[in-house]
Amino acid sequence: MEVVVEILVVNPNSTQSMTDKIVEAARAVASPGTVIHGATAAGAPASIEGHYDEAMSLPGLMARVREAEAKGIDGIVVACFDDPGIAACRELASGPVLGICEAAVKAASMLATSFSVVTTLPRSVPVIEHLIHGYGLSHQCRRVRSAAIPVLALEEPGSNARIKVRDEILCAIREDRCEAVVLGCAGMADLTAWLSEETGIPVIDGVSVATRMIEALVGAGLKTSKINAYAFPNEK
Amino acid sequence: MEVVVEILVVNPNSTQSMTDKIVEAARAVASPGTVIHGATAAGAPASIEGHYDEAMSLPGLMARVREAEAKGIDGIVVACFDDPGIAACRELASGPVLGICEAAVKAASMLATSFSVVTTLPRSVPVIEHLIHGYGLSHQCRRVRSAAIPVLALEEPGSNARIKVRDEILCAIREDRCEAVVLGCAGMADLTAWLSEETGIPVIDGVSVATRMIEALVGAGLKTSKINAYAFPNEK
Amino acid sequence: MEVVVEILVVNPNSTQSMTDKIVEAARAVASPGTVIHGATAAGAPASIEGHYDEAMSLPGLMARVREAEAKGIDGIVVACFDDPGIAACRELASGPVLGICEAAVKAASMLATSFSVVTTLPRSVPVIEHLIHGYGLSHQCRRVRSAAIPVLALEEPGSNARIKVRDEILCAIREDRCEAVVLGCAGMADLTAWLSEETGIPVIDGVSVATRMIEALVGAGLKTSKINAYAFPNEK
Amino acid sequence: MEVVVEILVVNPNSTQSMTDKIVEAARAVASPGTVIHGATAAGAPASIEGHYDEAMSLPGLMARVREAEAKGIDGIVVACFDDPGIAACRELASGPVLGICEAAVKAASMLATSFSVVTTLPRSVPVIEHLIHGYGLSHQCRRVRSAAIPVLALEEPGSNARIKVRDEILCAIREDRCEAVVLGCAGMADLTAWLSEETGIPVIDGVSVATRMIEALVGAGLKTSKINAYAFPNEK
Amino acid sequence: MEVVVEILVVNPNSTQSMTDKIVEAARAVASPGTVIHGATAAGAPASIEGHYDEAMSLPGLMARVREAEAKGIDGIVVACFDDPGIAACRELASGPVLGICEAAVKAASMLATSFSVVTTLPRSVPVIEHLIHGYGLSHQCRRVRSAAIPVLALEEPGSNARIKVRDEILCAIREDRCEAVVLGCAGMADLTAWLSEETGIPVIDGVSVATRMIEALVGAGLKTSKINAYAFPNEK
Amino acid sequence: MEVVVEILVVNPNSTQSMTDKIVEAARAVASPGTVIHGATAAGAPASIEGHYDEAMSLPGLMARVREAEAKGIDGIVVACFDDPGIAACRELASGPVLGICEAAVKAASMLATSFSVVTTLPRSVPVIEHLIHGYGLSHQCRRVRSAAIPVLALEEPGSNARIKVRDEILCAIREDRCEAVVLGCAGMADLTAWLSEETGIPVIDGVSVATRMIEALVGAGLKTSKINAYAFPNEK
Repeated sequence: MEVVVEILVVNPNSTQSMTDKIVEAARAVASPGTVIHGATAAGAPASIEGHYDEAMSLPGLMARVREAEAKGIDGIVVACFDDPGIAACRELASGPVLGICEAAVKAASMLATSFSVVTTLPRSVPVIEHLIHGYGLSHQCRRVRSAAIPVLALEEPGSNARIKVRDEILCAIREDRCEAVVLGCAGMADLTAWLSEETGIPVIDGVSVATRMIEALVGAGLKTSKINAYAFPNEK
Repeated sequence: MEVVVEILVVNPNSTQSMTDKIVEAARAVASPGTVIHGATAAGAPASIEGHYDEAMSLPGLMARVREAEAKGIDGIVVACFDDPGIAACRELASGPVLGICEAAVKAASMLATSFSVVTTLPRSVPVIEHLIHGYGLSHQCRRVRSAAIPVLALEEPGSNARIKVRDEILCAIREDRCEAVVLGCAGMADLTAWLSEETGIPVIDGVSVATRMIEALVGAGLKTSKINAYAFPNEK
Repeated sequence: MEVVVEILVVNPNSTQSMTDKIVEAARAVASPGTVIHGATAAGAPASIEGHYDEAMSLPGLMARVREAEAKGIDGIVVACFDDPGIAACRELASGPVLGICEAAVKAASMLATSFSVVTTLPRSVPVIEHLIHGYGLSHQCRRVRSAAIPVLALEEPGSNARIKVRDEILCAIREDRCEAVVLGCAGMADLTAWLSEETGIPVIDGVSVATRMIEALVGAGLKTSKINAYAFPNEK
Repeated sequence: MEVVVEILVVNPNSTQSMTDKIVEAARAVASPGTVIHGATAAGAPASIEGHYDEAMSLPGLMARVREAEAKGIDGIVVACFDDPGIAACRELASGPVLGICEAAVKAASMLATSFSVVTTLPRSVPVIEHLIHGYGLSHQCRRVRSAAIPVLALEEPGSNARIKVRDEILCAIREDRCEAVVLGCAGMADLTAWLSEETGIPVIDGVSVATRMIEALVGAGLKTSKINAYAFPNEK
Repeated sequence: MEVVVEILVVNPNSTQSMTDKIVEAARAVASPGTVIHGATAAGAPASIEGHYDEAMSLPGLMARVREAEAKGIDGIVVACFDDPGIAACRELASGPVLGICEAAVKAASMLATSFSVVTTLPRSVPVIEHLIHGYGLSHQCRRVRSAAIPVLALEEPGSNARIKVRDEILCAIREDRCEAVVLGCAGMADLTAWLSEETGIPVIDGVSVATRMIEALVGAGLKTSKINAYAFPNEK
Repeated sequence: MEVVVEILVVNPNSTQSMTDKIVEAARAVASPGTVIHGATAAGAPASIEGHYDEAMSLPGLMARVREAEAKGIDGIVVACFDDPGIAACRELASGPVLGICEAAVKAASMLATSFSVVTTLPRSVPVIEHLIHGYGLSHQCRRVRSAAIPVLALEEPGSNARIKVRDEILCAIREDRCEAVVLGCAGMADLTAWLSEETGIPVIDGVSVATRMIEALVGAGLKTSKINAYAFPNEK
């Protein structure tokens, strides 16, 4: 009989349509024995565009993680490319926790010697550069680029957002000489296949790769270390 | 007539006695023309011991910063050594914003070729190491050490916390060959003079140095850049 | 009907008993739909102890990878902690390729803020340090340690090798203040569970985590980039 | 009664008109209780354009610092963007010492996530890049640029030097996507306000920010560490 | 009477005409007391274009080094810019061993504050970038460029390869603002003088500088350390 | 007929006995066709112990380099381990210039995967650490150690300085697990052979290796780049 693995995929913003899209992307790649639980951070901003939005999303995010931990969740994906509150989530969780930026750039570093990131707004570029510096992958990241679109434009049916993302990837290939491209927003998860086809280069979506990597860590019997930094929060 | 500079010194945890101590430390070093406004993050944990506490302190911290900005504050000190929410505060503020870790380690780098940090709990060590890596000062930081005391023990009159901090500094001098020591907790601000005397080495307190550095940036006419990363939050 | 994923787990040394142990470790963690194909590098040294052994293992390793690629393998694990010839294997392969050092230290970086590595011989320490520098994780690696045992001692039933490995881990916990430990040799794969129990710290084995990570990359639809560095070898 | 703080602002080149301009810039931002003492390095080159000029400026610079220290100076600003002899000055001085490059780039790192530097001659670019590497801020510095003007052209009333500096800043905003600009020459101190207005971006002058930062360090009770590297010079 | 120094210059690919050219370059710069022994890696690919070719060249390379060591060679130059198998050669050799990339970029770092590399194929660019990262010289390397020519085109009399190399160097001067250029292929050794003349910039050929540096290390009485990493291979 | 190469070996301090010893060390390793010219920096401190001494040595050092350049010197060794004024000397010189720290640590990086440095006084340790950071070799340098002896004690016949140096090297082998040791003072040049014998590890003296490396650069036809940073000083 197959072992069931339960994974929380939590959207730190409060836009339900984005949660739906993210959960769909996670389910599309999940293994047969995996159950994906979607969740939305209640009270969070409608989109995470910068550090302030990120800060305001955290209590809602923590609440979702606490609930899932209480129910014995096996692993957690935080589905926003700014990787908000990952370390705090790791304190709350027994199982492994991954942000989609960390998962995507570490996957990229396994598939190519260099990559570029294409995100939504210019103001997210330094956020992502800082994350990649912390993950130790600056030497493999050619450039973090923005397609100059608001996050929620990706949710609007008639917008030209997907065209702008594709054109920015083509630009990255030409100018950055990158060997792979990472999509810098959870809201782009449904564009991956189309973008790979259009551009002829491996295009990496954080939601799907993070989902499968959490499965991998759980499957290898690994859990978040509870020694020191990621120990459960101190009682007050 | 002297120009008045108004500075917010905000304690991201909810312990009023710590706010009082921090405000006292800031006022003790502030210039004659400076007014220090103290504030406490309502709803935050009683102490910031790790990433989860930090995450839960942010909405209260943001509220204090928003209020101060609305009243035309000139500069802001966030008085917790984990530098919680600094980038988010910079989005909200027109004037300069400094965390006490950033201020203290950058000051240390101007006074000595190497320094060690002495903080409270072991779980704060990796948090501070990560901050220093981001500030680009890992090559000058010999080691981040913990004196193994809970943050609030510094508030208890009869505790031996100050003795433990002193002994850890003496250890740092002997083992790390550091040329200065940075105190890794806002709650140690009142110990600085005594520790310098006892150990014979420059001991740097983040609260006082951050307060004076914010004065310096304001006095030099400098403000937070509103281009890109620290632009005011997007309307939703 | 379940999709079958076929993974090559190749031992770059020529010791069949080590291949058997490695394949067993991979199968123990593999998903139901995964088929693990073991292979041994014919003509390679009996163990990889240093750069020369590594160099001499490469043609045999390449032959195994070429064969598997011709048969349409989905992903490849190179099961030696020195990560020999990974970039060359990536040129030959369509699917993803992982060395067990890269997989293990990247996994460790997702579960803890710091880790130490425990390997066999002192001469392997600088090899692994160099790999970790290239993977960008030096800032999270506290120390690479050797338990001072020859690789093949791990294959001898009566040896005290496992005791030495355990004692070195205990030493790492005490002296390095690390939050996780990575086992620095494919031959230690069968000790993981026992070592975790004995030491109370997450102990990471490269073979099992690499196997699951390859599954994850394959499952997320990702392949080795064929643009530039990892393009198929040029015809001569 | 106000405490008086005495600060030496020393010009390491021998051009008196540049000293005058620098002292004026320092006095314009100094706090009411601060006395600025200007000094010129006798026997130094007329301008510091490269490493040789810097080397030849040092004995004159050291003499000025020695004299000021003997008279009990509280803090010292070395007003040349190549930060000549800072470590040597720190050996001579009890109080804090800052070069204007170090002060300006550390200030920039507190106000923006990225900055570019605009200096005078191309030959100064690598000097400044090397300084910034040593200060640990390479990851925040987008680019060091030269406006291709000799240092002393900044002193000539009719020259188009200020136009060239402005145009180079506009170029930096467009091409480097930087969030702030640092002026890479003490002789540009009087252009700051005009350049900020013309370009709409925070423009940072090292002389004014270094003056205020020295005040800050003095005000926080901090002095140069006399343990090890910056101990007073050994008697011969 | 002059001491005779014997140096092996080994070509890791199997193209004899390239060995001849390399040996000629080495002899052209060697000191009067030096004897240059040329060798070709039997069984290796005709050219080293990427990691797979490099892997397949190693056994032939090792055999040449073993033979030379047995005859008491004083020092070894491995004449391929990918520095294949250098660490393995150092295990086999008593005397010093240098790859031409390591020699050339370290020489460049002694003559200029920055340099660019011009190599043959785009796929070699990431290989060289990775080497330079390992040698710690990324901060001095402006860019690794390819002239988009196959290695063996350099051997064809009528090809326009040399023109392409010259044009790429001119491009590097203009766009990278580099102060020196390193030739990124052993097969370019005969072009050095002509390229220096045409471009007016120091052009560094790895074969000649590695030959002279090996002489230097031998002449200074230095040998490969036999402690730990480069100890002779373990007997099996 | 042999080409004569003329090399200046300049002692930046004013102690003639140290110059004599340095010149002797250089001549002991120089090739037959090389003429070593010794020089002492007139007016410099008797020893270079820290940044102030270094600053005060520069005009005397520059004068010696200027004179030698005027007479057509081929290459220059600056024989003090703090590498004083190297960049300034490179501006004055046509031929290559090397400091003995740069030469020694780059040689060490070619012979071993890791090294430690043993210098004289504790105050020189941060100076050397800063140099090695600039040379990009921090990842190969295990530790910079001091034997706690004044520079001139090395000149006193009856002192126990050499014993202290040897004991510190033995300590480095044991504690740092280094594979080679670099002597961190020009005044130790005569101890190299004895120290190698006593400690059984490669011991690298900067004077001899710098002399041979300058020969190597000259012999390979290489000169200091005169583009940009090391261009001849501007006329005033």
